[in-house]
Amino acid sequence: MLSRPDRLLSALDLARRVEANEITPEAIVDLCAAAIAAREDDVGAFTYLDIAGARKLAREDARRLAAAPLRGLPVGLKDIYDTYDMPTEYGSAAYKGHQPAGDAAPVTMLRRAGAVILGKTVTTEFAHQQTGKTRNPHNLEHTPGGSSSGSAAAVAAGMVPIATGSQTAGSVIRPAAFCGVAAFKPSYKLLPTIGMKCYAWSLDTVGLYGAGVADVAFATAAMSGRDLRVDRASPSAPRVALMHTHIWAEASADMQNAVTTAARALERAGASVKDATLPPLLEDAWRAHKTIMLHEAARSYAFEYDHKRDLLGPKTRDMLEEANKIGVDAYDDARRIAKRARLALADLMGEFDVILTPSAPGAAPHGISATGLAIFNLLWTLMGTPCVNVPGLSDSAGMPLGVQIVGRFGRDRAALEAALFTEQALAQGS
Amino acid sequence: MLSRPDRLLSALDLARRVEANEITPEAIVDLCAAAIAAREDDVGAFTYLDIAGARKLAREDARRLAAAPLRGLPVGLKDIYDTYDMPTEYGSAAYKGHQPAGDAAPVTMLRRAGAVILGKTVTTEFAHQQTGKTRNPHNLEHTPGGSSSGSAAAVAAGMVPIATGSQTAGSVIRPAAFCGVAAFKPSYKLLPTIGMKCYAWSLDTVGLYGAGVADVAFATAAMSGRDLRVDRASPSAPRVALMHTHIWAEASADMQNAVTTAARALERAGASVKDATLPPLLEDAWRAHKTIMLHEAARSYAFEYDHKRDLLGPKTRDMLEEANKIGVDAYDDARRIAKRARLALADLMGEFDVILTPSAPGAAPHGISATGLAIFNLLWTLMGTPCVNVPGLSDSAGMPLGVQIVGRFGRDRAALEAALFTEQALAQGS
Repeated sequence: MLSRPDRLLSALDLARRVEANEITPEAIVDLCAAAIAAREDDVGAFTYLDIAGARKLAREDARRLAAAPLRGLPVGLKDIYDTYDMPTEYGSAAYKGHQPAGDAAPVTMLRRAGAVILGKTVTTEFAHQQTGKTRNPHNLEHTPGGSSSGSAAAVAAGMVPIATGSQTAGSVIRPAAFCGVAAFKPSYKLLPTIGMKCYAWSLDTVGLYGAGVADVAFATAAMSGRDLRVDRASPSAPRVALMHTHIWAEASADMQNAVTTAARALERAGASVKDATLPPLLEDAWRAHKTIMLHEAARSYAFEYDHKRDLLGPKTRDMLEEANKIGVDAYDDARRIAKRARLALADLMGEFDVILTPSAPGAAPHGISATGLAIFNLLWTLMGTPCVNVPGLSDSAGMPLGVQIVGRFGRDRAALEAALFTEQALAQGS
Repeated sequence: MLSRPDRLLSALDLARRVEANEITPEAIVDLCAAAIAAREDDVGAFTYLDIAGARKLAREDARRLAAAPLRGLPVGLKDIYDTYDMPTEYGSAAYKGHQPAGDAAPVTMLRRAGAVILGKTVTTEFAHQQTGKTRNPHNLEHTPGGSSSGSAAAVAAGMVPIATGSQTAGSVIRPAAFCGVAAFKPSYKLLPTIGMKCYAWSLDTVGLYGAGVADVAFATAAMSGRDLRVDRASPSAPRVALMHTHIWAEASADMQNAVTTAARALERAGASVKDATLPPLLEDAWRAHKTIMLHEAARSYAFEYDHKRDLLGPKTRDMLEEANKIGVDAYDDARRIAKRARLALADLMGEFDVILTPSAPGAAPHGISATGLAIFNLLWTLMGTPCVNVPGLSDSAGMPLGVQIVGRFGRDRAALEAALFTEQALAQGS
């Protein structure tokens, strides 16, 4: 059961129509504006919008934009990406009205590639768990996930074809799964995080949202200048490790079914799918993630803790209180475990192209004061491997379910190809 | 021939005197103020000073500061470290009067450890090569080195006991060598770079300046909470690899003599010193450094290139023009070389504790419009290994010469111990 794909704006489709002179960048801004007018009051994806500015740029710079890799496509930026021309509040009352002096590096890369920045999307405070106003477009009573809440919801509501997120635990993949859109978290440091509010420097990774896998591949290729597009040929059949992991019991029955459905669809489409067990060292790394994240967060957010504590939400304060207790020895131990685990994972992946595993424990939970769990994401963030949320499945209530394709470090294109293969296999099976 | 050690403020000595109630934090600010009054007009180490604020804090907060690890010691911050209470201009007309919203992570770590921030020190523009006003305290006609020009000069002129720098090629170690002070560049990511203006994210490393090796070890230990002090016991004799490297011929005769002198002093003091050749893979890595640095700089400084180009100095503009030409394939190749070279270096270092090699091609060159060459530093920055400039030698004109101790990745304390051993061996031999 596919979740409302008709409402999404496909970046690749729009770019092709610009190439064919069938649509102008300005008309695409209008498409976004119409969706925003229809849904933003309910969904609350944006913390700042400049539709007039986007329309003006798209009109006045139409020729340059149409010739650039991104063809003038509108983009929503998670509000932890600094922008010189829009306020950047990091989801925090401590930065109300804050105006950075410059753009984050990925923002300039997007602008150079021909993006039109439409606005800033809601993030949880400092990309942790203190939620914002955003609701899941598929059911307003449910969370869109976090921390990239607004970006996933904006793409899911057809408000923008592309949006950026960031992942320190599960903040790119999980919201995509909950909102029924594709998301790509590239290999660690494939895209720079300079000018983004830092949570944990060993983990923070840029991510992109789009309607489908080929869309996020197209957008990442365009902004990075890397050969990552997967829309120009049929993807070849991948060798898939079906990885239930040690926390399989934490996945809902619907999610377990979704992963099984994806595995069967992959096999039917010609992929090899073999069960694989998570090596014990990777279970250790799974546990080590939190130590690394918190130790670094205690330093990244040290200024805010010391100078703006009263303005922080209780979840942010509690996290930093806990973070302040983690000493350097525990941190160094955790880093050593992570390093060994990366080698063990590379060994395991000698036989496989990708891993198939849940994107989240299930569909988006009810309520918007919590964003769900990152337990199926955080290990891969720590390993630095490329991850893709493949949309296309849903539960009995019609809420999206995402399955996750995890690639080998530095093999981002192969991960995207396998994810596209999975997406197509699911579409054929439905 | 030692270069004027009498004028330096030893952090460790001052901290001990605070512990013994022999001096107050406020009186230490006065010592700094006196040196600044005497020399700053000539040396030009600072771009912003707040002596009154420092004195006020040292007086009003004397008890807390005296009990904190850094004992209220005044610190100078390279002006690429964001500060919420002082302007931060990154050495660039493009950021004239820029006031960040918060502190860089290392700044909060220093404040928490009981530092009193005295001011911001001169950096070359964006930590590249466009020079500022600073002159070498040992001879005002000579460069202090760069990019951490003001920090090295401020410590050398006795204006502060501790100053921070950053190294992307040779910007911590080289100025220390030219100015005759100790400097420590820890292992990559031992200290966070969050809130510092990013040049190249794979390379940027925090560094500290002090009068001697034990001083920089003390300061780094205090701010990081790590067991890095080397002043509590005599350092044991290290196993030293005497590494002339493939660019030995680029070292001046004086520098070659200085390295030979250090090697003999080490042997006399009981260290084992063996000649070691730089493996070819590390020569490749030496060449790869520039590709990585420039490719990343093109993205780190993309906003400034696109929006503030006319305000940048010609050397910065030229660097970015060159940087824009380096594609992703060359970058990926360079990163693969670096990764393999790190493994080769780890192999080589199985037999050794540290490498002894020049800190710079020679003494500080004449003139202040260029900062000298980083050729003896950039490989170790790319390898992420701890590096220490050991002062104590000088050329026939009385200009300081520094030798460099390079440790094993993650063995920062061993590197500092070996550097202290070298410093003491040189002092005994003089």
